[in-house]
Amino acid sequence: MKKIMNEPRDIIEEMLSGIVTSYPMIVHRVADSRVIARNTTSSYVGIVSGGGSGHEPAHAGFVGDGMLSAAVLGDVFTSPTPDQIELAIEEANNGQGVLLVVKNYTGDILNFEMAKEIAEMNDIAVEIVVVDDDIAVEDSTYTAGKRGVAGTILVHKILGHAAKHGADLPTLKKLGDQVVAATKTIGVALKAATVPEVGKPGFLLAEDEIEFGVGIHGEPGYRREKLQPSKKLAEELVGKLISSYDKKPNEIGVLVNGMGGTPLMEQFIFINDVSDLLKKEKIQVSFHKVGNYMTSIDMQGLSLTFIDLTNTDWQKALTAPVSTISW
Amino acid sequence: MKKIMNEPRDIIEEMLSGIVTSYPMIVHRVADSRVIARNTTSSYVGIVSGGGSGHEPAHAGFVGDGMLSAAVLGDVFTSPTPDQIELAIEEANNGQGVLLVVKNYTGDILNFEMAKEIAEMNDIAVEIVVVDDDIAVEDSTYTAGKRGVAGTILVHKILGHAAKHGADLPTLKKLGDQVVAATKTIGVALKAATVPEVGKPGFLLAEDEIEFGVGIHGEPGYRREKLQPSKKLAEELVGKLISSYDKKPNEIGVLVNGMGGTPLMEQFIFINDVSDLLKKEKIQVSFHKVGNYMTSIDMQGLSLTFIDLTNTDWQKALTAPVSTISW
Repeated sequence: MKKIMNEPRDIIEEMLSGIVTSYPMIVHRVADSRVIARNTTSSYVGIVSGGGSGHEPAHAGFVGDGMLSAAVLGDVFTSPTPDQIELAIEEANNGQGVLLVVKNYTGDILNFEMAKEIAEMNDIAVEIVVVDDDIAVEDSTYTAGKRGVAGTILVHKILGHAAKHGADLPTLKKLGDQVVAATKTIGVALKAATVPEVGKPGFLLAEDEIEFGVGIHGEPGYRREKLQPSKKLAEELVGKLISSYDKKPNEIGVLVNGMGGTPLMEQFIFINDVSDLLKKEKIQVSFHKVGNYMTSIDMQGLSLTFIDLTNTDWQKALTAPVSTISW
Repeated sequence: MKKIMNEPRDIIEEMLSGIVTSYPMIVHRVADSRVIARNTTSSYVGIVSGGGSGHEPAHAGFVGDGMLSAAVLGDVFTSPTPDQIELAIEEANNGQGVLLVVKNYTGDILNFEMAKEIAEMNDIAVEIVVVDDDIAVEDSTYTAGKRGVAGTILVHKILGHAAKHGADLPTLKKLGDQVVAATKTIGVALKAATVPEVGKPGFLLAEDEIEFGVGIHGEPGYRREKLQPSKKLAEELVGKLISSYDKKPNEIGVLVNGMGGTPLMEQFIFINDVSDLLKKEKIQVSFHKVGNYMTSIDMQGLSLTFIDLTNTDWQKALTAPVSTISW
């Protein structure tokens, strides 16, 4: 394993420190915690997300005015603890309550729900939106039901925009559930991630092999086969995403998300192929985003996310400017 | 070689198409060219940069209001041709002339100078700022003198800001030379880049080996040794950068630049170590930036850039908002 780091046990602490040292105009760290919060105060509903580390820039990179109020970090690929989540809730609450955006993993769900209960005992109103956008497989290594992956950042963006414009907690909860239902993701891996404490890749692929439908923690996908040209990969992923909707969307947003070790060059080539297919399908794309947003440490591969924008005003929320490190 | 692509010969065309399809609000492609230009028109001096592809998001990702007017792309690690550069100059010119920001490689210098001559015959005033921020080695595989690397994006940012605020061409040329003189970079590689047309890494490092002072095209550095902890790497790079200045700076900006295959986690750990050392040195850091900005395809490694901000107002230019894909 080749990584620029010191002791594996100090990774989270040092990374947190690096983030707040680098971007003190945008975020700060809640004292003695693993919570990164935005500097701007507000009177609107707080939005909190988080989960295991290793998905950088998610979620700390999306903290800032117009997006998340705070992010809470666990160990690598491990849920944050309820007490840390509760600290994030306290920090994000401005008297209007707090919405938690949680990726659908058993550990995260348990801990965020427990934190919700503690916060409610402290008279903070809390709602939870569970993101389960990964259509690749039902149930997986760390999940009952579908996994939550890169589509989560679109949920952050739309909810952050709505909160900033005064939506109350019940409205945000309802909106969040609608956005999740409209958001579908599927990924492909060329090379698995190496967790620093483990020191070797989570699974092995042959030099000419890829895996369809992988998760963001090395969870298995649905098929392994020989590496194919980008156009072929795009056909498979676009086809699966379109057919995952009950009704074919007229208008969508597209996110191509690099997994950490995939150059932008490949991501732009891939979205070019995706765009060609969507033109043929006569689906209008009114929002694009390309880059490393929800990574799996150094995994090579990418995911493709569609969000159905038909008859919504979410495109405006997705394109509104924000002050974050990484959006 | 595992890459998400189609035919290697189509990489640049497909990538260009992917970029302009994804970000039509910010950039467009000049017809039948490899020039990406910003959509906003202006009456101020144009700033053009470019070079070989493989450094994404440089340079197309920095085209937009407040930064570059246009970027011109060559083949992978190969200078764009004079006629393409001239197209970019024509596109960027608003009657106030055009400044070219060129990384110091023999091929780029030749071609940008030739384009300057052609443009001058067409009555466009042109100046060139050559960036040679890499302090690792004098002369290298493709260079006489020092190489131009990640510090180039800070030059883009400061010049783009000055142009937007009305600086004329001679002023920008002088400012550009001053910024270049204040900007120093040094890099380290854990794994070399694989050029798609070549299909294997440009050089090989043993599983426990790193190379100090590498360039962004697989050029050799100054020393190979066993991988060290981030703190040790930071000591070496910070020490070399500080001693490269005639006078130790009081105030600097810091850029940690990932080479394409290095996760943000490692970059944030590294900047945390850099920050600790700079505190000890009593050097104030008034600007930080961390991420993949001037990559070498999928190279694993990073570079560290300092820009001496002592007695300048460049911090304001560095932090001013811009409308680009990737700043």
